[in-house]
Amino acid sequence: MQNVEEYLKKNQDRFLKELIELLKIPSISADSAFSQDVLDTAEAVKNALQKAGCDKVEICETDGYPIVYAEKILDPKLPTVLVYGHYDVQPPDPVDLWNSPPFQPEIKKTDLHPEGAIYARGACDDKGQMYMHVKALEFMVNTHQLPCNVKFMIEGEEEVGSRNLSVFVANNKEKLTNDVILISDTGMIAKDVPSITTGLRGLSYVEVEVTGPNRDLHSGLYGGAVANPNNILAKMIASLHDEDNRITIPGFYDKVQELSEEERAQMAKAPFSLEKYKNALSINDVRGEAGFSTNERNSIRPTLDVNGMWGGYTGEGAKTVIPSKAYAKISMRLVPNQDWQEITEIFKRHFEAIAPEGVKVKVKPHHGGQGYVTPIDNTAYQAASKAYETTFGKVPIPQRSGGSIPIVSLFEKELKSKTILMGFGLDSDAIHSPNEHFGIWNYLKGIETIPYFYKYFTEMSMDLEN
Amino acid sequence: MQNVEEYLKKNQDRFLKELIELLKIPSISADSAFSQDVLDTAEAVKNALQKAGCDKVEICETDGYPIVYAEKILDPKLPTVLVYGHYDVQPPDPVDLWNSPPFQPEIKKTDLHPEGAIYARGACDDKGQMYMHVKALEFMVNTHQLPCNVKFMIEGEEEVGSRNLSVFVANNKEKLTNDVILISDTGMIAKDVPSITTGLRGLSYVEVEVTGPNRDLHSGLYGGAVANPNNILAKMIASLHDEDNRITIPGFYDKVQELSEEERAQMAKAPFSLEKYKNALSINDVRGEAGFSTNERNSIRPTLDVNGMWGGYTGEGAKTVIPSKAYAKISMRLVPNQDWQEITEIFKRHFEAIAPEGVKVKVKPHHGGQGYVTPIDNTAYQAASKAYETTFGKVPIPQRSGGSIPIVSLFEKELKSKTILMGFGLDSDAIHSPNEHFGIWNYLKGIETIPYFYKYFTEMSMDLEN
Repeated sequence: MQNVEEYLKKNQDRFLKELIELLKIPSISADSAFSQDVLDTAEAVKNALQKAGCDKVEICETDGYPIVYAEKILDPKLPTVLVYGHYDVQPPDPVDLWNSPPFQPEIKKTDLHPEGAIYARGACDDKGQMYMHVKALEFMVNTHQLPCNVKFMIEGEEEVGSRNLSVFVANNKEKLTNDVILISDTGMIAKDVPSITTGLRGLSYVEVEVTGPNRDLHSGLYGGAVANPNNILAKMIASLHDEDNRITIPGFYDKVQELSEEERAQMAKAPFSLEKYKNALSINDVRGEAGFSTNERNSIRPTLDVNGMWGGYTGEGAKTVIPSKAYAKISMRLVPNQDWQEITEIFKRHFEAIAPEGVKVKVKPHHGGQGYVTPIDNTAYQAASKAYETTFGKVPIPQRSGGSIPIVSLFEKELKSKTILMGFGLDSDAIHSPNEHFGIWNYLKGIETIPYFYKYFTEMSMDLEN
Repeated sequence: MQNVEEYLKKNQDRFLKELIELLKIPSISADSAFSQDVLDTAEAVKNALQKAGCDKVEICETDGYPIVYAEKILDPKLPTVLVYGHYDVQPPDPVDLWNSPPFQPEIKKTDLHPEGAIYARGACDDKGQMYMHVKALEFMVNTHQLPCNVKFMIEGEEEVGSRNLSVFVANNKEKLTNDVILISDTGMIAKDVPSITTGLRGLSYVEVEVTGPNRDLHSGLYGGAVANPNNILAKMIASLHDEDNRITIPGFYDKVQELSEEERAQMAKAPFSLEKYKNALSINDVRGEAGFSTNERNSIRPTLDVNGMWGGYTGEGAKTVIPSKAYAKISMRLVPNQDWQEITEIFKRHFEAIAPEGVKVKVKPHHGGQGYVTPIDNTAYQAASKAYETTFGKVPIPQRSGGSIPIVSLFEKELKSKTILMGFGLDSDAIHSPNEHFGIWNYLKGIETIPYFYKYFTEMSMDLEN
């Protein structure tokens, strides 16, 4: 790629300004109060793709938020890269823990980011990383170096389980035909330790409701005589893990893919300091499934976490009440071979089964997705690896991530193509947390690296054909 | 008492209107947003006591909400009754479960209350029951039948632990001198089964905070590797009860007063239908400490209930987060001989001790109070019993209540006098719940019965002196 660094220098201020404008729109898909903002963000993405040089850009309606589709087809004989990303963001709460308003982006310098980082909800996940692809395309088009066809599919429901994407994909297989899917919605180990995510965990997200008495009761008059949904919910949740922090749901581990000692030894090579990890989180110890390392616990092992829990009086002061209902939002991270629908079903069966007399239990499945693994010997991975080597001067480490991008396995099933996860974020970006940010260095490094992927992937694919 | 029924007939509409006006003011002491309303309510109570015929009425400032003091002294040689009540109310939430707005009182007829019941927060607890005493005084004064001296002490912080009452009482022992304290802030077994509360449970109310990582984390990237405060809090709460639903805090039961088989047999005589109890609450079974009946569990046995619990994302939709903090409000009901400060201390020590590695735990004591028992052989109890017998045509059943009125034991300690708990509410009044109400029949029956207590108590006390 000629002049990519030069092009970046010349345009980086504009690249930042454009991203900041996009970050100002609170596209919170989980909260219907922001639906107009989500729609406005789709518009903004559409315009950005047009400006970047796509021939055809459209907003595709769904039963939920629309999907922005765009393409630039040079020649049907050339390979086609399908870029996926999302323009919706996580809710910002707890808002009071943000040092600057989540939707008023600010650039701040930190020890890790002397060049500055953009602080805003969605800065990294995924507006910032998605926008790298828009700007990479702009560069390739303006410098006449786009080597292949490209398609964009940017959705607005990723943070709520991509409810309508599967329908869209199933109905538009022709339109979405591609040779590889490219996504930047993950991270890398460190600024000087590039890595490519080769595995993702699946997800099953459920909400449970425990109902005791038909109304809130005075805890003095009824305390000790009736089942208190708060206490019962706590008891039921506690019972989901045993002393070794293994999940107690019957059949939960049946299909878990156990890694070989050799694979685990490979993983253990990734640079990791438990001390730094604990200090970064201000915790005196880690906690997880017995017999596995921290890196294994959050990547190759399934987990169960209570993401939200509430019941009774949570306001100021004191209220002596036994609530009628208590609730929890529970997510299970799954590993390859675990089927999320099957896990959701056995969770439901188990949780209902352990409900004691005196309460009624409801389990409402929210959403989910399968785990995924990319073989590191395929062309696309090799091309990505070479791209990082070119811009970072180092071969990237293949890494399993603990996160989930449910639609990746959907793509493989429906579109029969592999996905490459080129993530430029860092663990410290605080995605899904207050003060989410994205390093300017990372943002620009992504825009610089992506075009090389197009170059090498096209070259390698053509070579294979000849 | 002459013409009490006649006086009631003539004035009952006004008695209702006056109470309804008082109920319109949202005097929620737990929520500082309503502080002006609480103060306005004190004003309203002051005016009501003046109109009712008190000679001296004053609003006594405290470090919190004021205490309304009033008195009518006929002759220092006559006995003196001190009436205690409170003008503050519980928060109304969950507001959406109310069938009519909590502070727009409505009169509705029900099967249990064919004469109608007043629906409003505080209708029974305690504005309605407190106001019975104001109207009873009005009757006695207007018909020149007040047989003794009377003092009123109506506070505005009962629902938040009577924070400043103890100071006021300690500083005003002279002013508050009395021969008996009369309170209507409890219930009776049924409209046709009058009862007098002879025992109250003590209370220790604490708030706990569990802190894990220093910020909310993405449950995919960290799930399974760090302690999740929601899961840990659930585990800690669950561990506070054993399989027999006994509380596991070391030393918790040490001072519990065990009742004799005979006393338990006495208690068992109170009419009670487990089926009706379960149906009224729409539960398929009760749950409590093994080896005790429902009536024992909620009166003579100590308990531990989670009144509120919250952590993580509790909004609409899904958020895959591991929260930095999780919280719970926990109240323990105590029985006579258990010291609430000692229990609070051992709870704190125990809860901090069971915190696992990876989290920090804080326990913040909210408030509390001692349990209390009234001997049924004293003059005041005998007078009260005779009063009920006169107006109900039945001897009332002495009954232990599960509720707490912490200041009752304080009164005994500071003022050296016993308290009589003449409650006219019913279990079904839903105090502390949505749709709190107070039967018009109960309200008027209270106003009719109270004057007889004054009559008999004065007569019996004078007899004793001669």
